[in-house]
Amino acid sequence: MSLIVQKFGGTSVANPNRIKEVAKRIIRTLEKGYDVVVVVSAAGDTTDRLISLAYEITPSPAEREIDMLISTGEQISSALLAMAIESLGHPAISFTGSQIEILTDDTHTKAKIVDINTERIWKHLHLGKVVVVAGFQGISIDKDITTLGRGGSDLTAVALAHVLKAKVCEIYTDVPGVYTANPKIVQDARKLDFISSEEMLELASSGAKVLQSRSVELAKKFGVLIHVRSSFTDEEGTMVKEKVKGMEEALVTGIAEDIDQAKITILDVPDRPGIAAKVFGELARESINVDMIIQSAPIRDKNDISFTIAKSDLEKSLKIMNKVKEEVGAKDVISDKNVAKVSVVGVGMRTHSGVAAKMFSALASKDINIEMISTSEIKISCIIKKDKMEEAVKILHDTFELGKTSYKDKDV
Amino acid sequence: MSLIVQKFGGTSVANPNRIKEVAKRIIRTLEKGYDVVVVVSAAGDTTDRLISLAYEITPSPAEREIDMLISTGEQISSALLAMAIESLGHPAISFTGSQIEILTDDTHTKAKIVDINTERIWKHLHLGKVVVVAGFQGISIDKDITTLGRGGSDLTAVALAHVLKAKVCEIYTDVPGVYTANPKIVQDARKLDFISSEEMLELASSGAKVLQSRSVELAKKFGVLIHVRSSFTDEEGTMVKEKVKGMEEALVTGIAEDIDQAKITILDVPDRPGIAAKVFGELARESINVDMIIQSAPIRDKNDISFTIAKSDLEKSLKIMNKVKEEVGAKDVISDKNVAKVSVVGVGMRTHSGVAAKMFSALASKDINIEMISTSEIKISCIIKKDKMEEAVKILHDTFELGKTSYKDKDV
Repeated sequence: MSLIVQKFGGTSVANPNRIKEVAKRIIRTLEKGYDVVVVVSAAGDTTDRLISLAYEITPSPAEREIDMLISTGEQISSALLAMAIESLGHPAISFTGSQIEILTDDTHTKAKIVDINTERIWKHLHLGKVVVVAGFQGISIDKDITTLGRGGSDLTAVALAHVLKAKVCEIYTDVPGVYTANPKIVQDARKLDFISSEEMLELASSGAKVLQSRSVELAKKFGVLIHVRSSFTDEEGTMVKEKVKGMEEALVTGIAEDIDQAKITILDVPDRPGIAAKVFGELARESINVDMIIQSAPIRDKNDISFTIAKSDLEKSLKIMNKVKEEVGAKDVISDKNVAKVSVVGVGMRTHSGVAAKMFSALASKDINIEMISTSEIKISCIIKKDKMEEAVKILHDTFELGKTSYKDKDV
Repeated sequence: MSLIVQKFGGTSVANPNRIKEVAKRIIRTLEKGYDVVVVVSAAGDTTDRLISLAYEITPSPAEREIDMLISTGEQISSALLAMAIESLGHPAISFTGSQIEILTDDTHTKAKIVDINTERIWKHLHLGKVVVVAGFQGISIDKDITTLGRGGSDLTAVALAHVLKAKVCEIYTDVPGVYTANPKIVQDARKLDFISSEEMLELASSGAKVLQSRSVELAKKFGVLIHVRSSFTDEEGTMVKEKVKGMEEALVTGIAEDIDQAKITILDVPDRPGIAAKVFGELARESINVDMIIQSAPIRDKNDISFTIAKSDLEKSLKIMNKVKEEVGAKDVISDKNVAKVSVVGVGMRTHSGVAAKMFSALASKDINIEMISTSEIKISCIIKKDKMEEAVKILHDTFELGKTSYKDKDV
């Protein structure tokens, strides 16, 4: 029998009534003849509430204990959903990441999946049950509970879809699919029927919240088909595929914004070899992901290094940077939380020049100052002031005519 | 080094500030040179809130899933407490019952401890850590999460104290110790400095909430010394010991009340051998504990069987009894939730007659009707109407002069 992995996010399981709706949807999938493995997130703001409890106790809670704490959110959802499915007359069983043995490394709060033991899943599927797995969590070699970082339930779902060779990994969320821009900001943002995993990856890592970027990466790597769709309607969402037909000409597919970044600048760093390695080595050791990096041209053997990180890593990063500052003899460390990143993504950029220029002039037309720029083959990102973000997204969506057109090459 | 097990109940860990206070108390114990293993309950009403979520989903949630669900409460407390201890500069580590391997049978929601693996505990104690264990939970042979029933954290603590050969098992609670009666009902109720485990067992199984009766039983069996004390003050509480000096003459030690019971009566049961076995066998199969049983004298080959159970088991029990009624040809099954049990406990009863008579006449003096009676060597319990409970406890406490006297034989 063909198997489908369905992942339901926090808003989809926010309360008992929604959980019952999710159960009905799962039953509908079963009735179509599929086996179903379900992955659930914690309800609503559960994870945030638990984390704030930890910070009421101490400003620097041990990360191993954070994982013990926050993994309970998904455990609760999974148990409640299993009950709801059973109450509709279909057997179901819930498992934590530890119980399944979703083996990870021991980087608490940001663990990476190493392997998944499928034995218990197959056994209970064979017994005719829906298997409900608590997302976002695993177990380390030391048998400690680990978590996979924000959006980690998507990763659990894609990883399970891969190891179970599922037909599709359905990601149910509170929006109908992937849009050309955030519909809360851009009124005529358009839902995409298809998107390439490459573009999805860039959008996700640029701040589009609909899918966690690591999960897209994993799906891309193993050819897992992802279907992003709404848990509130039955309409089709967006298919994320390795290759999308007729996409060759697509120039710009979407705009993403990210207001969860912070910028750190180290001033007057001596221009010696190994300094950058030192700065970013120390951050990597603490598992802090650096996004954009800019190093100014050296003036009198000194230069400035700016980089962006997740806002949640700011405090920790500043501590590290102040230590690094002393060690390398830099002048000062400053930070800015009031920044936003806007990104333009499209596979067509690869073969068409001029997208960057068009983006910069669009931003300039609205007097929006660009503080940092980074580019990939199919993406251009700019750091701007946070209060200019909405305006920037709107003008970019307009400039690339994303509201009106479907995948078509445009004059640049 | 000598080891102490400390158990903190739900009110002691109800919020971050209280958890910090608990951490300080643990540090004070460490500073006296003890190793400490801590057992925690779920904060405040967490367990009840989780259970009501389950019942919002379905009227008959699967018990395996209930255990998945409610075991999270203690997991949260244990992680938060470990953080709090670490924030005071002392290493600590939290474990779930599954992680420790508190092995139980598979009677979900009422599991019995079969064995405890002490390896991880000893290892981390050896590393100088405070080991914080989530109470109330274990793991079955199928590697499913189980829970030990109401008050199960006490059981976890006593069982750990036994296998770790702890000097004492300190049960921290929101009252200063064991009283001669519920101080919320009887103004001059007196805290006991010592109580025998035998009496404590009778008081606990008679409704005194301060200790779970199964944990007292376990402590009695293995000679674990329990110290019941307040988590809000440093004063000594009540020591529960196998033998208490000078206790030989103690007649009545305390009064307990229980309003969590319900009464079921099966009317006109045919007077044939094997009927009672059938009735109580069916209840036992569903792990429903029956407390008091009364069978009326047969009239024309029929009799009535009345028994009491926990109120929470009423619905399930009625279902079973209605089935039994059909099978044995009884006339009807009726139930009453508005009952209370009042009990008088004391080792002196063993050698002194007249306590029962004194109890009955005290109740009669207040026009309190006795619906059922049961006695043990050191306890007499009566089922009365629930609205008479407070009056009954007060008159019994007065009658046996428990407010004024310490352990002394009184004229009966």
